[in-house]
Amino acid sequence: MTKQRIAVDMDEVIADSIARFQEWYLRDYQLELTLDQLQGKSAYQAVALEHQPIIRDYVNQEGFFRDLPVIKDSQQVLRALSERYELFIATAAMEFPNCFRDKYDWLQQHFPFIPWSNYVFCGDKSILNADYLIDDNAFNFERFRGEGILFNAPHNIHETGYRRVHSWQEVGELLL
Amino acid sequence: MTKQRIAVDMDEVIADSIARFQEWYLRDYQLELTLDQLQGKSAYQAVALEHQPIIRDYVNQEGFFRDLPVIKDSQQVLRALSERYELFIATAAMEFPNCFRDKYDWLQQHFPFIPWSNYVFCGDKSILNADYLIDDNAFNFERFRGEGILFNAPHNIHETGYRRVHSWQEVGELLL
Repeated sequence: MTKQRIAVDMDEVIADSIARFQEWYLRDYQLELTLDQLQGKSAYQAVALEHQPIIRDYVNQEGFFRDLPVIKDSQQVLRALSERYELFIATAAMEFPNCFRDKYDWLQQHFPFIPWSNYVFCGDKSILNADYLIDDNAFNFERFRGEGILFNAPHNIHETGYRRVHSWQEVGELLL
Repeated sequence: MTKQRIAVDMDEVIADSIARFQEWYLRDYQLELTLDQLQGKSAYQAVALEHQPIIRDYVNQEGFFRDLPVIKDSQQVLRALSERYELFIATAAMEFPNCFRDKYDWLQQHFPFIPWSNYVFCGDKSILNADYLIDDNAFNFERFRGEGILFNAPHNIHETGYRRVHSWQEVGELLL
């Protein structure tokens, strides 16, 4: 039987990009960016108006995606999933062309059991032919042909249209 | 009605990578690499045994994919197709992580009517959710869910399993 296929987003799903926003915001403004502030908002929307242009541009800066912390339990659960499913990593990298190499290297380092043949750097995720898409952005599910699974993140707490998981343990319970 | 979707490969389909092999082989060995030599073969298979390791590594070199000539009529026909179909560019860029930026910039320069949201840098093209895939490598069609259209190239002349087109004019006749 053909294995079912799972596509998995990177930022805020397996890579902790919020940690980088917090780190750089502290560095540039000596201010904490708390998870409370981030509820229902993008990082740039959570800061003072005069800081927004700078925060918004962080993702385009050299090194933003380098050495991001790995989201808790994602390695262990994805390794288990890789035995039962075909796994693809699908990230909207086209928005940030400076990040290609950082994202590629990060995946090689932290998820060596997923071959590079299964990386997808794209823009519009409706191009993915997969059964499941685990992503923190619900708009990626709108034209997706499979089932969207919303990975809980501060910015998406008001989204109600899709099945939500709060952790990789919960993904494991759902799909293993 | 939803538009049908066409995914289009880059090398030897819209980007003339053979021209770069010829240029660099001439530069390094003062020898011509002719289309006759390339019939049924990859570029590295077409050269003397002692040159093969060097030729095989060209694609990993900085600049290989930069400023490649555009394949004849591809701009004009893709522009016409973009009005009737959803177009995606799908290239096996993961094999050559040094080429990401060159490929991105090349597309922006030569195909400005295709938005970056519709670029896909991938490995295994069975991840594409499209109705047609225009590609010079028949192995990409094996698990592809839509219809593969083989774009004629010297290396694929012995392939018989798929519909073959010899030019972008012929693609236009088929799909417009």
